[in-house]
Amino acid sequence: MEQVRLIDVTPRDGLQDASGYVPVQEKLALVEGLLGAGIRSIEVTAFVRPAWIPMLADADELVGQLGTLDGDWIALVPNEKGLERAAAAHIGTVTLVASASESHNRSNLNHSRQDTLAALTRVTARAHQFGMRVKGAISTAFTCPFEGEVPVKDMMMIAEAYLQMGVDVLGVADTMGTATPLAIKERIKELNAIRASVPLSLHLHDRFGWGLANVSMAYEYGVEEYETALGGLGGCPYAPGAAGNLSTEKLVQFFTAQGIKLPVELEALAQVRDHLFSVINQRMPSPFARELS
Amino acid sequence: MEQVRLIDVTPRDGLQDASGYVPVQEKLALVEGLLGAGIRSIEVTAFVRPAWIPMLADADELVGQLGTLDGDWIALVPNEKGLERAAAAHIGTVTLVASASESHNRSNLNHSRQDTLAALTRVTARAHQFGMRVKGAISTAFTCPFEGEVPVKDMMMIAEAYLQMGVDVLGVADTMGTATPLAIKERIKELNAIRASVPLSLHLHDRFGWGLANVSMAYEYGVEEYETALGGLGGCPYAPGAAGNLSTEKLVQFFTAQGIKLPVELEALAQVRDHLFSVINQRMPSPFARELS
Repeated sequence: MEQVRLIDVTPRDGLQDASGYVPVQEKLALVEGLLGAGIRSIEVTAFVRPAWIPMLADADELVGQLGTLDGDWIALVPNEKGLERAAAAHIGTVTLVASASESHNRSNLNHSRQDTLAALTRVTARAHQFGMRVKGAISTAFTCPFEGEVPVKDMMMIAEAYLQMGVDVLGVADTMGTATPLAIKERIKELNAIRASVPLSLHLHDRFGWGLANVSMAYEYGVEEYETALGGLGGCPYAPGAAGNLSTEKLVQFFTAQGIKLPVELEALAQVRDHLFSVINQRMPSPFARELS
Repeated sequence: MEQVRLIDVTPRDGLQDASGYVPVQEKLALVEGLLGAGIRSIEVTAFVRPAWIPMLADADELVGQLGTLDGDWIALVPNEKGLERAAAAHIGTVTLVASASESHNRSNLNHSRQDTLAALTRVTARAHQFGMRVKGAISTAFTCPFEGEVPVKDMMMIAEAYLQMGVDVLGVADTMGTATPLAIKERIKELNAIRASVPLSLHLHDRFGWGLANVSMAYEYGVEEYETALGGLGGCPYAPGAAGNLSTEKLVQFFTAQGIKLPVELEALAQVRDHLFSVINQRMPSPFARELS
């Protein structure tokens, strides 16, 4: 595997819990900046009820203005209503979410895992009718803020349901940021055994500085896609104690140093990040992010 | 492999380039503190000419006072004269050093690699006569400050010479802190092919925050021993631009979280580190070190 795919999730996961409001024009500038630095796959927003995540209430407006830009747009949708909005906005890939742990699924989505999976089966079929790609993401794939360590079988139950629906990408999220390389190895090997040619996407929160060690092990076991946010921004508002995302620039630097080329300009990326941080007036949450500039 | 061995090198590599002088009584307190926190294997000093490394000029005095303490003492010796001093001080293991790159070997040891290896062959035989264990360490095993990337065959030339001498442990040092997991994998696999049952010891400098990712890959490929320093202290004075060592407490935390037990008390370790830093009045060089306390 000489290539990996990078998905920048700054506009969605990076900003959804930001302390200051980021106006839609600044989100557009962010997306343009990411494109300019060479990142084409961007999770731009989530089509959820505005009251759920006020920072993403501008989803339709933002996506409506992406029209002239040439990117591979991804949006999180929790249900059929969200999917319809994403389809109307010509989003190419939708990210669906279900948690491996029952209590996080109820806290995050207000439904049991079984109800969520039944609904997502319908959403996946409808998305495919629209010609969209579907990523089925497993939240709390390692640990849960309420239940602690999540049994492998619970993660596998969600993965099997997604594969049965026919998702195009399988996503694994370390919502709490507690994953270690050995846990990554154990769980990725289990997923490899059932996923056939469906690509795996890894979403890490870099709580203890183990993010790149986890990426490295995931790469060793064949994970094709990595989700990151500029400067390590982000954190799930429904997972108390969760840390920021793995930083986009650190990942680019790390892969590049190993001869795994990504078509990304690090200096341009650092400028986009610095501008964004000046907008949200927030100090960088990741100890890594400070080294680059 | 469920167990790893940790060597703390704070008194030697951690302090040899420290900006403030650390009196011998504080070094003794450091060694006692490490023992108290559960770390038994400690590289306490180097038996070099005092003018070379003034911070280690107290080697004989320090080691003379270790008598009543129960530890597994390791000391770096550059030549036969150093070995005689180490033997007189009842050191159990001596670390020998040769560089994979010719120019670093000349800069660091003032000799060609071939001359160094010939001398170390005599030192190893003599150490074994004294009943001491010998670690043969390869400096600049990845990159050299003068020559850039070091060819794998140069590293292997030193490794083969060490194995021929009959060293008890083979050490690999990323002197510059530029190693990546894929480089670790490549080089460790080469060493595995020739080392038979001789254990491998890894000495990292954590320049870009890739230290734990490198450890993780090294563990995956069977490296048994890791050298670290409290708070990421240290840096080779003869390798311009080199960064501090991998931090002992970060390594303990990282392995422990993965179920690889080390008999070390993290809180006690943090106290020893904090005291040491107050003595040398130096801010912690590693971004990692700040998170623990």
